[in-house]
Amino acid sequence: MEPIKWNGTSLLLLDQLQLPEKMEWVDCKTVEDVAEAIETMKVRGAPAIGAAAAFGIAIGAQQGANLNKGDFLQYIKGVGERLARTRPTAVNLFWAIRRMNHLIDQNADLEVPELVELITREAQTIAKEDVAMNQAIGQHGLRYIPHNARILTHCNTGSLATAGYGTALGVIRAAQEAGKNISVYADETRPYLQGARLTAFELHQDNIPVTVITDSMAGHLMKEKQVDLVIVGADRITANGDTANKIGTYSLAVLAKHHGIPFYVAAPTSTLDFSLETGERIEIEQRSPEEVAVIGGKRMVPAGVPALHPAFDVTPHEFITAIITEKGVVESPNRERMAILK
Amino acid sequence: MEPIKWNGTSLLLLDQLQLPEKMEWVDCKTVEDVAEAIETMKVRGAPAIGAAAAFGIAIGAQQGANLNKGDFLQYIKGVGERLARTRPTAVNLFWAIRRMNHLIDQNADLEVPELVELITREAQTIAKEDVAMNQAIGQHGLRYIPHNARILTHCNTGSLATAGYGTALGVIRAAQEAGKNISVYADETRPYLQGARLTAFELHQDNIPVTVITDSMAGHLMKEKQVDLVIVGADRITANGDTANKIGTYSLAVLAKHHGIPFYVAAPTSTLDFSLETGERIEIEQRSPEEVAVIGGKRMVPAGVPALHPAFDVTPHEFITAIITEKGVVESPNRERMAILK
Repeated sequence: MEPIKWNGTSLLLLDQLQLPEKMEWVDCKTVEDVAEAIETMKVRGAPAIGAAAAFGIAIGAQQGANLNKGDFLQYIKGVGERLARTRPTAVNLFWAIRRMNHLIDQNADLEVPELVELITREAQTIAKEDVAMNQAIGQHGLRYIPHNARILTHCNTGSLATAGYGTALGVIRAAQEAGKNISVYADETRPYLQGARLTAFELHQDNIPVTVITDSMAGHLMKEKQVDLVIVGADRITANGDTANKIGTYSLAVLAKHHGIPFYVAAPTSTLDFSLETGERIEIEQRSPEEVAVIGGKRMVPAGVPALHPAFDVTPHEFITAIITEKGVVESPNRERMAILK
Repeated sequence: MEPIKWNGTSLLLLDQLQLPEKMEWVDCKTVEDVAEAIETMKVRGAPAIGAAAAFGIAIGAQQGANLNKGDFLQYIKGVGERLARTRPTAVNLFWAIRRMNHLIDQNADLEVPELVELITREAQTIAKEDVAMNQAIGQHGLRYIPHNARILTHCNTGSLATAGYGTALGVIRAAQEAGKNISVYADETRPYLQGARLTAFELHQDNIPVTVITDSMAGHLMKEKQVDLVIVGADRITANGDTANKIGTYSLAVLAKHHGIPFYVAAPTSTLDFSLETGERIEIEQRSPEEVAVIGGKRMVPAGVPALHPAFDVTPHEFITAIITEKGVVESPNRERMAILK
């Protein structure tokens, strides 16, 4: 499955709000199209957001190709700023924009058409590299997955959350490919139901046994000794290994620790943010309470009653057994040990 | 709010599957009507199920009024057996049926019309006593609710889960009436969303400040020091204080313990089951996975992917700060201390 397709001038995104009911593609022809697709979560997942933003800058570059150099450089910076205003928590978005800006700065002596060409190629490179990184994450993670493991995961960290293969689901895919006879419990992951809708869809397509549970069942299953390990993705990892991920991850980490179950985070190094000392500094995106109150078009919370919708929470590093990246694994992460990933 | 109304010959139940969208009453004219209303969760909540079953036996008695005594006694026993087959976990159901059977046994020398009259009155007494017990629970629980407490609750334990006033919500109502300036976080409580649909509805009607969260947000809120205490109801409490309650309760109890937050259970003594030594012996009802996969009529889990639906989980007594009943409170419950409730 390839949820992000570049056709040379525009970006095709598989609309993840419609899955699994419909496979609908959104054709993003402008920077604003891409920004709105990220804001409304038609595309989501930290690495996928990074790749989509890079393509957004490529679309912007092509549309600004007739500007003179000075105007182009100013304009393309504004494109990056617009895309940076879409979602605050996943750092891969800012990483991709920074990487594109750095490329432009380094090549500011080129003519505009050459710059446009370079920018477009870089976006494609980011997407390709993401798939390769995920495959490397899968290989590094393999040794932590025992034969016959029953694996609990949260949200969606697969092909649909990346440019392909997946992070935590990449490790699960690698384990399946290695013949480890694994099975997966997918937390449904309220409010967006990425687990029920997307993770179940992906794993079922790949013939990896998957069973959906409500988020509230995880503790019960752990107590009943039905879960051998937990593996999740990440939206931002700070210098000490603290990890922001989809709301509900922290509860899982506390439950895993209480039951003596290993808890793994799988993410590319583009998710690292060494500029923040600890997770307490991470800005948690607050999304609309309507996304909690209305499910599948039906209002479940009575009108007039407020709801909360923090989209992420932070899991302190002491709850994490290991962070698995494409560059290697950090076990019992802390500030010193995380430094090897710098 | 009075969700269970006896009109002399049939039982009117507020259909809880339609709330908060519609206030629809189901008129149960036969034993089978009552049994199906319990099975399909049109009426739910341990004490409400008990009261509904008692009225089910009253309906059965009225319909069997023309039988001769021997046939009547055999028939009314079968009515109880049918109602007992509806839902296995909440013990109040069996308690109510046993109480009715005991009354019939004690008065087996009466003529059938007198027996019918006695049975009908006993069902009304059970409902009335339930409201009085809940008010007593509220008074006993008051001292555990500090001023300005921010209270987290799970599922619905209010008027809609009882014959009126509520158990855990009864304590919350009593605290509000005592001017304690409380506020409530209601877990939405997947899959049935009793928190989002019913608890939010009830508390909003009573002007008690309530905010709905997804079940996955509880840990995050506790970490952010937004929760002062947790209070829940119970479907069955064993001799050592282990408590079966709505799926997700156990996760909350582990999270509360980790964060040093008190965790209370509020229930009438009809919820006690001293015949079971520990919670490990409690039968956990497994409901249809369709109830997880389909929300508000919309399928969220791809066809062909299984889901789990244990309707309850068991919280061991060591996670419970106190069990609050109409007869008194057991702090740090264990086998010895629970004995005072016998």
